[in-house]
Amino acid sequence: MIEFSEIQKATKRISGKAIYTPLLCSPYLNEIAGRRIWVKAECLQITNSFKYRGALNSVAQIKDVHKANGILAYSSGNHAQGVAYAARQAGIPATIVMPSDAPAIKIANTKALGAKVITYDRQNEEREDVAKRVDPDEQMTLITPFDTPSVIEGQGTIGVEIAEQAARYGIKNAQVLTCCGGGGLTAGIATALASLAPDFTVHPIEPEGFDDVYRSMKSGEIEENDKRIGSIQDAILTPRPSEMTFEIIQRLCKLGFVVSDQDTLKTIALAFHRLRIVLEPGGAAALSAALFHSENLEAEDIIVTASGGNVDDALFIKAINDFGSPK
Amino acid sequence: MIEFSEIQKATKRISGKAIYTPLLCSPYLNEIAGRRIWVKAECLQITNSFKYRGALNSVAQIKDVHKANGILAYSSGNHAQGVAYAARQAGIPATIVMPSDAPAIKIANTKALGAKVITYDRQNEEREDVAKRVDPDEQMTLITPFDTPSVIEGQGTIGVEIAEQAARYGIKNAQVLTCCGGGGLTAGIATALASLAPDFTVHPIEPEGFDDVYRSMKSGEIEENDKRIGSIQDAILTPRPSEMTFEIIQRLCKLGFVVSDQDTLKTIALAFHRLRIVLEPGGAAALSAALFHSENLEAEDIIVTASGGNVDDALFIKAINDFGSPK
Repeated sequence: MIEFSEIQKATKRISGKAIYTPLLCSPYLNEIAGRRIWVKAECLQITNSFKYRGALNSVAQIKDVHKANGILAYSSGNHAQGVAYAARQAGIPATIVMPSDAPAIKIANTKALGAKVITYDRQNEEREDVAKRVDPDEQMTLITPFDTPSVIEGQGTIGVEIAEQAARYGIKNAQVLTCCGGGGLTAGIATALASLAPDFTVHPIEPEGFDDVYRSMKSGEIEENDKRIGSIQDAILTPRPSEMTFEIIQRLCKLGFVVSDQDTLKTIALAFHRLRIVLEPGGAAALSAALFHSENLEAEDIIVTASGGNVDDALFIKAINDFGSPK
Repeated sequence: MIEFSEIQKATKRISGKAIYTPLLCSPYLNEIAGRRIWVKAECLQITNSFKYRGALNSVAQIKDVHKANGILAYSSGNHAQGVAYAARQAGIPATIVMPSDAPAIKIANTKALGAKVITYDRQNEEREDVAKRVDPDEQMTLITPFDTPSVIEGQGTIGVEIAEQAARYGIKNAQVLTCCGGGGLTAGIATALASLAPDFTVHPIEPEGFDDVYRSMKSGEIEENDKRIGSIQDAILTPRPSEMTFEIIQRLCKLGFVVSDQDTLKTIALAFHRLRIVLEPGGAAALSAALFHSENLEAEDIIVTASGGNVDDALFIKAINDFGSPK
């Protein structure tokens, strides 16, 4: 159970340290979608994904006596960078377990931010097991990507900002689409909006073929993906939600839906041309849902998280070349 | 003379309509510059440059009786888009005079936003003369790119936001670098900051070989550039400041300096990789100054305007390919 009051404390804790990211819009995107699309651009966050919020909120609460033992985290690549930088700022050594097939820029950046990186084979190993091997005596402070209350509370600060920005732009009633992997972002935002904008509905968006959260919400129990790899939306390819995130999502969210890899590439090109932001495939999922799946939407205003921008150059340029300049 | 109280009114007028753009930062850029760099990302503004602010503030004040006669503007391309969209939102027809060699995306977008576009040869004609031919009887409402008080006041709202954001991030004393063409942005920001953050200094940044404002400040009278073309920083290749902008800049700004085209391309690549924003060359000038001309800077905190992002695909991809991925 995550309390809204803890998200409020997190908001104060990260204020002036994390970027208060904008809620962007574009007449061109509104025209494509046939409604107003608002983009919470967390690709502009420090370390270029929302993950810095949860990392900062978690690192800020580590007691002095534990600092020397260091921080341990596992991550597909964005949480890795957020934890690495928050740890470096606090002067705490960090070790991060990452899949060996993570985008090159995510591994390079995590190292550049001073963390020790240990890679694993995501098809044959569970990252939790690798983490246990690294720290068998559990001496390090473990900051999991979505199963730690302080992490979910940190991500929930996005919900606080969305509520403030929606009021500024006169948005009364919105469907909020979140890029959803393990569900930390979704759970945090849903908890904040349940208090601040209870008329808004929150819908988790997942990659085609990796709809563990959708199926879990349908069946009422945690379901798992058959596959571990096979989508370019690497940031949100989590095997399953955790008990902590699923309980919140089940209670506070409405059903979401899935988007194809191809549509996320098209969305990357559109976000480049029309919003002038840089998205990675997993960070483009929710915007893709808003642009290309109108049949699943009802509200006049759709708010999406653009969760991350850590894309390799080649894939980004491919997206622009494949989908060309707007006419 | 532009009054700060008019900028305050403009701030209210555009609130909830223009984007409150973020002040971004990145540990990687701070490392390059050896100080803290803050980026006011107006490439994220509606129509992807700061020009929408002045356009919106101007269009909002057109009296009903004048609306049917339409709006006339001339612009290198960003003011064009801002005026076109603000006019369309207000239901007023707009005619825009643009140089024939403006980036294709700027001409295409201006048309897509519903304006009638008239092109001219920037090497052999003055745009003011073309505008006079279009509207010899001066029936239309003329919104010039930087010589109209409501335009300067609209751009000044950026200064209001910078002051608010600087307080949020604990910035006490900063040098503010502005991308400077005709000087509307610079004059507006300088006027706002003179009231709100009088310890900040404002420095106009210009393209190498097009330093009309620098030379005007040195000599104390308006100086003109020898050339009209010859830099990729098209957004800020204005022949000379106007009397209105020069008077303000002379009174409120400190001397700036110039940046090379090559450095703006390098800056576009860095802003892509490290801030995940898309800049055009003229919009990258101030950030380029902060990153590569430390010898001209004193303060620990440098705030730059990233004024626009309307770049053609080919030039953008060239910048990424030429300057590669960060190590």
